[in-house]
Amino acid sequence: MSHPNRNTLWAETFVDELAKAGIDAVCLAPGSRSTPLTVAFATHDSIEVFSHLDERSAAFFALGRAKRTGKPTPIVCTSGTAAANFHPAIIEAERARVPMLVCTADRPPELRDSGANQTVDQEKLYGDAVRWYADLAEPEAEQRKLRYLRTTTARALGSATGTPPGPVHLNFPFRKPLEPTDVSGDVPENFEDEESLAASGRDGPFVRVSQGVPELDSAQLADIAETVSNAERGLLVAGPADAPTPTRTALAKLADETGFPIIADPLSGHRFGHDRPVVGGYDSYLVPEVTDDWPNPDIVLRFGASPTSKVLRNYLERTDARQFLVDSAGGWREATFTATDLVVADPTRFARRLAGELAGEGASGEEWTSRFERAEAHHWELVSESDAHFEGGVLASVAELAPDPATLFVSNSMPVRDVDRFGKPRSADVTVLGNRGASGIDGIVSSALGAGSATDDSLVLVTGDIAYYHDMNGLLALARCGVDATIVEINNDGGGIFHMLPIESFDPPFTGQFKTPHGLDFEATGDLYDLDFDRVETLSAFRERFQASIDRPGTQVIEIVTDAETSHRTRESLQKSVVHELSG
Amino acid sequence: MSHPNRNTLWAETFVDELAKAGIDAVCLAPGSRSTPLTVAFATHDSIEVFSHLDERSAAFFALGRAKRTGKPTPIVCTSGTAAANFHPAIIEAERARVPMLVCTADRPPELRDSGANQTVDQEKLYGDAVRWYADLAEPEAEQRKLRYLRTTTARALGSATGTPPGPVHLNFPFRKPLEPTDVSGDVPENFEDEESLAASGRDGPFVRVSQGVPELDSAQLADIAETVSNAERGLLVAGPADAPTPTRTALAKLADETGFPIIADPLSGHRFGHDRPVVGGYDSYLVPEVTDDWPNPDIVLRFGASPTSKVLRNYLERTDARQFLVDSAGGWREATFTATDLVVADPTRFARRLAGELAGEGASGEEWTSRFERAEAHHWELVSESDAHFEGGVLASVAELAPDPATLFVSNSMPVRDVDRFGKPRSADVTVLGNRGASGIDGIVSSALGAGSATDDSLVLVTGDIAYYHDMNGLLALARCGVDATIVEINNDGGGIFHMLPIESFDPPFTGQFKTPHGLDFEATGDLYDLDFDRVETLSAFRERFQASIDRPGTQVIEIVTDAETSHRTRESLQKSVVHELSG
Repeated sequence: MSHPNRNTLWAETFVDELAKAGIDAVCLAPGSRSTPLTVAFATHDSIEVFSHLDERSAAFFALGRAKRTGKPTPIVCTSGTAAANFHPAIIEAERARVPMLVCTADRPPELRDSGANQTVDQEKLYGDAVRWYADLAEPEAEQRKLRYLRTTTARALGSATGTPPGPVHLNFPFRKPLEPTDVSGDVPENFEDEESLAASGRDGPFVRVSQGVPELDSAQLADIAETVSNAERGLLVAGPADAPTPTRTALAKLADETGFPIIADPLSGHRFGHDRPVVGGYDSYLVPEVTDDWPNPDIVLRFGASPTSKVLRNYLERTDARQFLVDSAGGWREATFTATDLVVADPTRFARRLAGELAGEGASGEEWTSRFERAEAHHWELVSESDAHFEGGVLASVAELAPDPATLFVSNSMPVRDVDRFGKPRSADVTVLGNRGASGIDGIVSSALGAGSATDDSLVLVTGDIAYYHDMNGLLALARCGVDATIVEINNDGGGIFHMLPIESFDPPFTGQFKTPHGLDFEATGDLYDLDFDRVETLSAFRERFQASIDRPGTQVIEIVTDAETSHRTRESLQKSVVHELSG
Repeated sequence: MSHPNRNTLWAETFVDELAKAGIDAVCLAPGSRSTPLTVAFATHDSIEVFSHLDERSAAFFALGRAKRTGKPTPIVCTSGTAAANFHPAIIEAERARVPMLVCTADRPPELRDSGANQTVDQEKLYGDAVRWYADLAEPEAEQRKLRYLRTTTARALGSATGTPPGPVHLNFPFRKPLEPTDVSGDVPENFEDEESLAASGRDGPFVRVSQGVPELDSAQLADIAETVSNAERGLLVAGPADAPTPTRTALAKLADETGFPIIADPLSGHRFGHDRPVVGGYDSYLVPEVTDDWPNPDIVLRFGASPTSKVLRNYLERTDARQFLVDSAGGWREATFTATDLVVADPTRFARRLAGELAGEGASGEEWTSRFERAEAHHWELVSESDAHFEGGVLASVAELAPDPATLFVSNSMPVRDVDRFGKPRSADVTVLGNRGASGIDGIVSSALGAGSATDDSLVLVTGDIAYYHDMNGLLALARCGVDATIVEINNDGGGIFHMLPIESFDPPFTGQFKTPHGLDFEATGDLYDLDFDRVETLSAFRERFQASIDRPGTQVIEIVTDAETSHRTRESLQKSVVHELSG
């Protein structure tokens, strides 16, 4: 290929290196300064382009895709505030440990802070939210610079997918012309051959990154194994996972060897997909009224991020158990500060090796596990018997009826909490995702559609009305990016979560400033984005409509109108019943 | 007033100090961690609350309001990604020198990076985009701490409205309880009295900020006056202004004393509202074909930011004039690097004093000014005679028909350029605003509605379809914040500006990745946001509909469908005609 100018050469080299490292998709937002990158991505034949008009949605789309695949989808934008619109998703990626490659176009150094149009200070724009930042060299057809570019590309991908994964920001200065117009003498005629020569013998990426992960040595492992095998009662707590699909067999093996129940957060990758029973109703019953009569566990092995369930977190705070945090990056994600041991190791390998080390020595008592079995039985019986029209019932239905396989994206604030309490464990391969790194209500639609774009699973999104409104722009990706979804929009006309907080009793300002009813009739979003939009009034109508949607092509939005306060009271009364049965 | 707990006391003290310093409005986004601030703002009886569900729109609304008033409207959000959604507007505020007070709620120090929910690194979240950042002390009912809080509040407002104005970020750590619930012993019973005592003798703010601005000394001024009076031909270039309504008399006086024409950017505050003629058609005719026959000016006095018009910027680059940049903050906003003198002084005072110093000695020749008069006459005649259906005709009509007074907000990328070339100077008091600090297409709707919320002027927004889509969420403020507007949405189904760039000739990827037609039928936004939505097909229908809208209450969206390529060709042919007449 000949290169009309240095910018074209530069961008094509970058994209070529990405493609050789396995990148197969990109999210592009239109803009002028980013033209060299846009053209290079759009004309590369092994990269799929997802085009977005709102950069905020673009970044969340890439985030969702990476949450589902574990692989970054680069995002590209022009200079200026466009880049700042990426920021929310970048913060979520940082907190949730999701690989992301942010490519911003910029003015060349001489035009920065000079009054040049659409020129802002993009240096370290995302502060400490990125794992690595580089303000790239100015493009030039020069061998060392191109080796630098390929090497930097490999390093950026390595950082984005390292331990922990996260966002990386590359800022690209480009001087005009930005288009692939011929600039005589800009790139020597035989330049490509020389470049290829420099890379000779390399089949694939110019720099291949082999990423190691932390492992304990045998003595460290034996030490922990001894502690575990001495415990009478233990728990395996699987919090929200860093990886999209954690290896279920490793934790299952550890559960087999120890007899410890697996407490499975819906975002852990363990709530669904196990043939073995896992504990899923804890958010309802691990309260003092119940557990005060229980013996404490001796040991808790905690994997993943801090659990979604406040009830579970409070329970772990109350125990005097020795608590091991297993974290591949040495992070501390436990805000009660009751954990006693930090194990810096890859969780899957650690679980597998610990199980191997224990080999039958760890089994904890039947008396301990039966408490959980009994509690689970009571909780799920009550949930399945309830026909109350409340938000928890919607999530219980979705968890029950989601096809196998499915990707289920649950929004903040309430859907993720409701799937936590009401989503009954199943062996079906349901991948549950949510934005729990920073727990924002922004970018939910786009994150879900991004996840859906990466898989042939049926895609289900459950969102509240505020999150649906917040990222309404994200719906454009349905048509532009060819994603189909079933979108369950639970409309309680405002911020239902505030009914769970003490501010509820201060009105005003409760209704005006916290619940914030908006009165929007979302049916118009059906016309705007060419979707099927259906409103259902009852849970049984919802279940019927939901099942019908799964088999239909295209996207259906099913709105179910609920009352936030009633839903909250129903959650409370169901919990009261479980607690009554268990403590009675 | 009694204070149930330290957070309530803290937030009320902060809001009290703001109110005493003249702050009369706030933009609130709902959230839990920010509860103390929200309650304090919402219950204060002299502060108007604008409630927004999308923080990005909230920040742009506050930006627009401050662009119109010159005074910050604080923005408040909860912790997490909510704060990152403020970032685009903050960058625009920094570049455009707009005062802004950003208040983010945060976890207390012990919960940062601990896995606590919705907790992200908010320290220096906006990097160098803010003029000042403070991570506030933890709330406490302690006299020195409260004096610190009031002092910090005054300093923050002082920084936000200093030279140059810009955004300031205050990060508020709050520990539970966040609601105004009683916490025994948290605030001593007679605490308020003591606090009032400490502030005794202070009528109004605890710290009163008297803000000076840079002024030259007499010798410096006389030196410049001599240079000016020796010049035969000069120009006063009024670029986009920092202040919403610059003092027109000062520049008029300087023009009177020098005889220099005022070249008035539409965003300068000088295109409209002068009784004297100003130069407004330059973007059409200051091209080499015309000006190569002209003598060069000897001197150019440049006020405000870099002009919107590339034609004007290129013309100034071609002259060998001595060019004075007058900038109150010593900024350099001239990317051709041809200016020779930087005058660090308040532009209004400088103009007034320089005019006084010259007192009749500066008048430049009639031959010089008549060139501009002739060019203006030709240009505006052609514009008024043209009945072509193109985007420039829409802006010409809006500029002509906008009521007196009016606030006219023009979007990037094309409307601001079209009002520059086709908006004929009028004496009507039309305040033209745009987001030209960073020239983004984000937040346009909200910026316009924020500007409208601050004035009784008729509010007109002219936006393209992409900007309309990008900040569709901003339309919610029409109902929630009680703003009425006439919204002119020029729909050319994609990014029309790209037709002006060389990338137009590379298709693909031109259509898919640059023009990006979306095919959205915005009529549905009328149903969604309960607006009148009308589509017009001709310029005459548009003019009729526009005039009818001005007198009607409520908000009307008038969509006029245009073809970007035709519009571009019409701009070119009109320009060719003017150039032909002038160079012939």
